[in-house]
Amino acid sequence: MSETDPIGRLTALLTRLPGIGEKSAGRLVYFLLRGPAEYARELGRAIAEIKDRIVRCGQCQDLSPSDPCRICSDPGRDRAALMVVEEPHDLRAVERSRSYRGLYHVLHGTLSPLEGRGPEQLTLTALLCRLKSGEVKEVILALNPHVEGDATAAYLAEQMAGLPVQVSRLARGIPVGGDLEYLDPGSLTQAVQGRRRQGEE
Amino acid sequence: MSETDPIGRLTALLTRLPGIGEKSAGRLVYFLLRGPAEYARELGRAIAEIKDRIVRCGQCQDLSPSDPCRICSDPGRDRAALMVVEEPHDLRAVERSRSYRGLYHVLHGTLSPLEGRGPEQLTLTALLCRLKSGEVKEVILALNPHVEGDATAAYLAEQMAGLPVQVSRLARGIPVGGDLEYLDPGSLTQAVQGRRRQGEE
Repeated sequence: MSETDPIGRLTALLTRLPGIGEKSAGRLVYFLLRGPAEYARELGRAIAEIKDRIVRCGQCQDLSPSDPCRICSDPGRDRAALMVVEEPHDLRAVERSRSYRGLYHVLHGTLSPLEGRGPEQLTLTALLCRLKSGEVKEVILALNPHVEGDATAAYLAEQMAGLPVQVSRLARGIPVGGDLEYLDPGSLTQAVQGRRRQGEE
Repeated sequence: MSETDPIGRLTALLTRLPGIGEKSAGRLVYFLLRGPAEYARELGRAIAEIKDRIVRCGQCQDLSPSDPCRICSDPGRDRAALMVVEEPHDLRAVERSRSYRGLYHVLHGTLSPLEGRGPEQLTLTALLCRLKSGEVKEVILALNPHVEGDATAAYLAEQMAGLPVQVSRLARGIPVGGDLEYLDPGSLTQAVQGRRRQGEE
């Protein structure tokens, strides 16, 4: 196909994206063909250039247009707090909540012996190196609350045991807007165990 | 964002695609950033160029790299049969089944008074013009079996009433591999009404 069948070729390239099957890919191709040429050109250019325009921040390891990234080079951030997240999109989620003014460290994954991801696949060395400088006083483990996230958090806590930093993790419980009736038993258990006195912050 | 935030810009462009929300767009961006640069460049180029590399076939109205398209210019196709489909992907589906060797006509939609799509939005003039040449003996209406498809088929049949062509439609019934228990009542009704004598073609 390739040169003689641009539709088949684009469809095949699109199906390599996560969550895009053959049918969705076909739908996307016809959407592009029907839409304005300017949009297809802009989107295509943005995709083609994305890897050249984004680097890894040498400090927090986030993906960013600059190194150091905007957050690491912001003098207004609290340099004594370091939040450890799994992925860049976790960092974005915390930033959107505007609930945190410290720095971050992106692990780029979790430990997963089953999928062959050990500590050397994560940005652990860089993390421990940052902690050794002594500037960070609190490390907040903001890993996702599933088996791999918990195992990774436990491993990290162990690695940081000898360092003069306080290690905390995000509170667990009922999500705002959540409904007790539909909440999974695990979250409900965490919500009960972590209960706070009424009126307490 | 735009120039200073390539990730945000690409995410925003991706969310304009059908079926891609903010979260899926974010996932796609990080997939691209993590994958090989060659893939992102190839995909981007294919998207940017698709509109320039595809034209509408002046005969069947399919989207194709050439005009006339491969099918319309194939001397091996039966030029007495014309299958009318809604969209280019319907044509591809029939071609994959290898059950048909005639020509096609792509309407590029269905009639939908609610969405403001009248006959002039479809490729009806081109269709009637092809039929008037007298070469086509049978028109097979292969529209999708839903309200709009049926209404469009009825309208087409009316338009073709005075022409010397036989008009047929695809058989309806139980899909191969389908399970009576899970089939909708409409299909089951069609399957009963259209029943054939055992052993009949």
